[in-house]
Amino acid sequence: MIKVGIIGATGYAGAELVRILSRHKEAEIVWYGSRSYIEKPYASVYKNMFQIVDASCMDDNMEELADKADVIFTATPQGFCASLVSEEILSKTKIVDLSADFRIKDVSTYEEWYKIEHKSPQFIKEAVYGLCEINREAVKKARLVANPGCYTTCSILTAYPLAKEGLIDMDTLIIDAKSGTSGAGRGAKTANLFCEVNENMKAYGVATHRHTPEIEEQLGYASGRKVVLNFTPHLVPMNRGILVTEYASLKKGVSAGEVASVYEHYYGKETFIRVLEEGACPETKWVEGSNYVDIGFQIDKRTGRIIMMGAIDNLVKGAAGQAVQNMNLLFGIEEKEGLDLVPMFP
Amino acid sequence: MIKVGIIGATGYAGAELVRILSRHKEAEIVWYGSRSYIEKPYASVYKNMFQIVDASCMDDNMEELADKADVIFTATPQGFCASLVSEEILSKTKIVDLSADFRIKDVSTYEEWYKIEHKSPQFIKEAVYGLCEINREAVKKARLVANPGCYTTCSILTAYPLAKEGLIDMDTLIIDAKSGTSGAGRGAKTANLFCEVNENMKAYGVATHRHTPEIEEQLGYASGRKVVLNFTPHLVPMNRGILVTEYASLKKGVSAGEVASVYEHYYGKETFIRVLEEGACPETKWVEGSNYVDIGFQIDKRTGRIIMMGAIDNLVKGAAGQAVQNMNLLFGIEEKEGLDLVPMFP
Amino acid sequence: MIKVGIIGATGYAGAELVRILSRHKEAEIVWYGSRSYIEKPYASVYKNMFQIVDASCMDDNMEELADKADVIFTATPQGFCASLVSEEILSKTKIVDLSADFRIKDVSTYEEWYKIEHKSPQFIKEAVYGLCEINREAVKKARLVANPGCYTTCSILTAYPLAKEGLIDMDTLIIDAKSGTSGAGRGAKTANLFCEVNENMKAYGVATHRHTPEIEEQLGYASGRKVVLNFTPHLVPMNRGILVTEYASLKKGVSAGEVASVYEHYYGKETFIRVLEEGACPETKWVEGSNYVDIGFQIDKRTGRIIMMGAIDNLVKGAAGQAVQNMNLLFGIEEKEGLDLVPMFP
Amino acid sequence: MIKVGIIGATGYAGAELVRILSRHKEAEIVWYGSRSYIEKPYASVYKNMFQIVDASCMDDNMEELADKADVIFTATPQGFCASLVSEEILSKTKIVDLSADFRIKDVSTYEEWYKIEHKSPQFIKEAVYGLCEINREAVKKARLVANPGCYTTCSILTAYPLAKEGLIDMDTLIIDAKSGTSGAGRGAKTANLFCEVNENMKAYGVATHRHTPEIEEQLGYASGRKVVLNFTPHLVPMNRGILVTEYASLKKGVSAGEVASVYEHYYGKETFIRVLEEGACPETKWVEGSNYVDIGFQIDKRTGRIIMMGAIDNLVKGAAGQAVQNMNLLFGIEEKEGLDLVPMFP
Repeated sequence: MIKVGIIGATGYAGAELVRILSRHKEAEIVWYGSRSYIEKPYASVYKNMFQIVDASCMDDNMEELADKADVIFTATPQGFCASLVSEEILSKTKIVDLSADFRIKDVSTYEEWYKIEHKSPQFIKEAVYGLCEINREAVKKARLVANPGCYTTCSILTAYPLAKEGLIDMDTLIIDAKSGTSGAGRGAKTANLFCEVNENMKAYGVATHRHTPEIEEQLGYASGRKVVLNFTPHLVPMNRGILVTEYASLKKGVSAGEVASVYEHYYGKETFIRVLEEGACPETKWVEGSNYVDIGFQIDKRTGRIIMMGAIDNLVKGAAGQAVQNMNLLFGIEEKEGLDLVPMFP
Repeated sequence: MIKVGIIGATGYAGAELVRILSRHKEAEIVWYGSRSYIEKPYASVYKNMFQIVDASCMDDNMEELADKADVIFTATPQGFCASLVSEEILSKTKIVDLSADFRIKDVSTYEEWYKIEHKSPQFIKEAVYGLCEINREAVKKARLVANPGCYTTCSILTAYPLAKEGLIDMDTLIIDAKSGTSGAGRGAKTANLFCEVNENMKAYGVATHRHTPEIEEQLGYASGRKVVLNFTPHLVPMNRGILVTEYASLKKGVSAGEVASVYEHYYGKETFIRVLEEGACPETKWVEGSNYVDIGFQIDKRTGRIIMMGAIDNLVKGAAGQAVQNMNLLFGIEEKEGLDLVPMFP
Repeated sequence: MIKVGIIGATGYAGAELVRILSRHKEAEIVWYGSRSYIEKPYASVYKNMFQIVDASCMDDNMEELADKADVIFTATPQGFCASLVSEEILSKTKIVDLSADFRIKDVSTYEEWYKIEHKSPQFIKEAVYGLCEINREAVKKARLVANPGCYTTCSILTAYPLAKEGLIDMDTLIIDAKSGTSGAGRGAKTANLFCEVNENMKAYGVATHRHTPEIEEQLGYASGRKVVLNFTPHLVPMNRGILVTEYASLKKGVSAGEVASVYEHYYGKETFIRVLEEGACPETKWVEGSNYVDIGFQIDKRTGRIIMMGAIDNLVKGAAGQAVQNMNLLFGIEEKEGLDLVPMFP
Repeated sequence: MIKVGIIGATGYAGAELVRILSRHKEAEIVWYGSRSYIEKPYASVYKNMFQIVDASCMDDNMEELADKADVIFTATPQGFCASLVSEEILSKTKIVDLSADFRIKDVSTYEEWYKIEHKSPQFIKEAVYGLCEINREAVKKARLVANPGCYTTCSILTAYPLAKEGLIDMDTLIIDAKSGTSGAGRGAKTANLFCEVNENMKAYGVATHRHTPEIEEQLGYASGRKVVLNFTPHLVPMNRGILVTEYASLKKGVSAGEVASVYEHYYGKETFIRVLEEGACPETKWVEGSNYVDIGFQIDKRTGRIIMMGAIDNLVKGAAGQAVQNMNLLFGIEEKEGLDLVPMFP
């Protein structure tokens, strides 16, 4: 059994790790780190886990944890992992970091968008960007995995094959993204109260959202050139789910059939990516609770643009599910172990 | 592998059967019956099942199905199962009926509340009321199981130990129940439109809801006397979940400790019933997607009443989950097979 | 023009006062008191009021305000009004207190349920309980009005005529209440986050909720005897609305016709109380945004009980609307001025 | 008093007309046309109107109605108004058509997108497109007003000043729109059931939505050239509200200050358009229940694009409110009469 430690186990992403790992056949959680709830039974914080998890919360002592765990998930605020990771820790255990600390290769870009100093730039190069379907082989050999952001996972995977194959004009790419509210975390903020979110919708972080450079970097690698794009997130009155609607000019003469076969080529054998039939629009509910990414597209001949759409559960494929998928890769077990989750409808 | 046929596979309860059975290790669905969608791929009706279910919908020919399936689930309107079941069918296959046809032992009570003639009264006596935790042994030997209603499962299990042990005055029992909207089914009715249900709450079927006699009959068996009670259902703007709040006068001198130990005695070893610590109030979200029943209570010394509270997911323990639990009992496999579902939060 | 001061103008009840008073023809707000947002433009806190309210927030200096305002609304936490009110203030201005400070006549009952010392017991006797339809004449002559709670307004008005006329057995009265989340206020608490409330339902404050003694006292006056009852509030995933379902044994021989005519007698001429036709169940959406109370009932001959149902918008008739109605009574203007609000559907 | 007839009074847009007109000081409804509910009391269909509207529903006899009403609102399916309007009717009464029949000047474009034959092309030229802020003077003199679509009102008004002043490259304009579910109407369709919409989000009508040519035509007039754009609507789990996020390349050198002053120039004196301070993002809840359009924008210097955002209540400014605003213009009464509605929050 893989021994798993979680730091930040009582945030929504941490709780989703607990939910998924509680049914994983080759892993067991040995550490439920949560500074806010030390010594409190985990199931008193998340009562859905009553009689499923018996353990109590622990502190966030990463050095101690490195001795006890084969892998540590850090579901923590930006800066936490970078401020504590060390060669000694990495020599004892693997880390899957769910924060942004090691996602961006250019440290100045990180510091500019996140407004904090990076405390461990020496590990950035080594860290593998854990978008499993794209970087599978690299993840297998990693010590430190930078688990992608929720918006970025959905945004990148939706456009990746077309970016890679040069079917779209990358200068025209616009990503309009919509997210359920669990993406905002469990912090007690007025803006996230039920009455403020329910029956309401808004854009936020327009032209400034931190997932932008992460998307640009990865799609830059895919297309072999620098990418600058617009990414606009919106808050939607639902718990889970991200939907992205992406617009780009299609290269001249590219047909729907070509697009479909490029998607098929890249994703046809992927367990967790479902390319819908042409013209079908993904819905977030179809992937709720699961690790799936659903992708659809439509070509508008009038404007010459393609509209690509992707849907994920932000807490699963957008956070905890992908983190477990990365863990499975790290330890050479079946990639879908623990992730054979059927979407719940309704 | 147990061969399973479902009639009514495209209703919400039927779809939940498909979701659960798709991960059951000892059963496989061989028939997705749905008169409305014959020959259409099942996954085109429930797109969450894309790449999980490949089969297409079939008609509802119960006789043909009896030859192919070891067990038939009828997730159909009242009257359907009673109009088709026969000795021949029951000699070939087992039936778990999710409708009310065989739940009520007194046929005249059935006909009075349901306003239809019962077409197979000869099987009523034989049918076993499939409330697993109460009738486990009888279910194991049954050919025809009457799967309990959603409201009734939650209402009965919440009060059962106290009714059985005579701790409450059954003449004072009042059940105020609240349900998510999936309980109303997938029929296209104006009253169930998003805009009519959202941001709204109402009681309905006051003093006339059909689950009333079912609850009365079972609590009558428990308490050894005729029970007449008030049951008031309410529609709540959420997809899943039933919460019942039950009021009854506590017999003189009964303490919280006694109540707690009676619950412990009956449910302490049950996998799917979680009795919360005293004073805790169950929440529907804590059981969402799972087969759990969460139960709590509070004694009001000022009025001498006990307030019992129970929560279930109406589509799981209130329908499909319990049906699979009954199937497991019928075939002698582990009772929780396929039902080891962790509640999803948020 | 009546000069109005609001203390607590940035809570949900305070904001609803602003919404209603902004269209009141004989009143103008001269003071938007909000300790948390002093000097910030009111419309930057509630952006729905952009270009409607130009003023900025003020502190909560009640003495200064008493010189400037003809009436002060205190939409503040328990204890605030009682700790500041004085003979001098009451000699200069009228007060409509939306907190519980002056609702309960017995100070020890107040202190027991609210767990705080009452700082101005000398004004309790003088204060008029502002349930307009019941205490209209007394309100007209008051200096200090105790605006009723949201649950209590709905609970009392629904049962009042039957309690007053002795048609029900008061010992059997049980009130099961359901509320939208705005009743929990705008404080940033984890329990009120969107993801915790949405797709969820629970009871809370079982047998201990502070509105209980208020309901008991008023129904005690109505029935001419001490009343002890069960009141159970529930949290519902919607912004606005309270629905109460009340159960009581009907006195022998009382017919539906008699009940209907008692309701008609008490409420037939009331602008804001709508008694529905027999058998109709009120829905919270039918009163949303308005000052209406909708009432329905059903008699269950099997159990001898009557089920009474009432619905209000908790922020209007349950708080700000009733406060304005009280203001109108205090100043001798038309009772419905500013309250001619049409419910919004959907 | 203006005598008003409504055809389609029991759809959501029709019901909103009733809500607004019930408080209009210079208009009275004389005809509640609803083929589905003939002779049923209107308040039995929309119980929020109990004791507010006493009338019963009538048929949809437009000729008879033309004799009785000074203005007819047709809140009806596409094709209805065009199939019945005649010179005789228009000589007796004015028509505000809430359907698309007279919105598009080119009949072949209409027939191509709506897939129906236009039955009264002779009135298309005369019909005035009732986007009040743009066509105010023309509306005043009209007999037949084509009330704009909900998406179109929000989409056009958000971009109009920049299109008119040539600040953006119209070839790059992309409109990503999100709507509450009331926009889908009150028809009983499975796709609009609570359980299908709640906790879900999707795009629909991608590259084919019928509001596209209407937006293109009007923005074409504004910019003085043919406009072809992408418009993508999305369904959001809320009752009311439209949010549009519009992307376009800003002409070189245009500053945020210039954009702000162009908005100020066009909308500074408009009662119903509120241009937010720079960087603020409109939220649908801030305009709920009101006739406001809230507009914000952000310039992304990295990409050279401007992101414009607009929010309306789809049933008010997007349908009934604008229709009443048009009526006020038609009859020379104050434009905001009946529309002085304060947004409701929460």
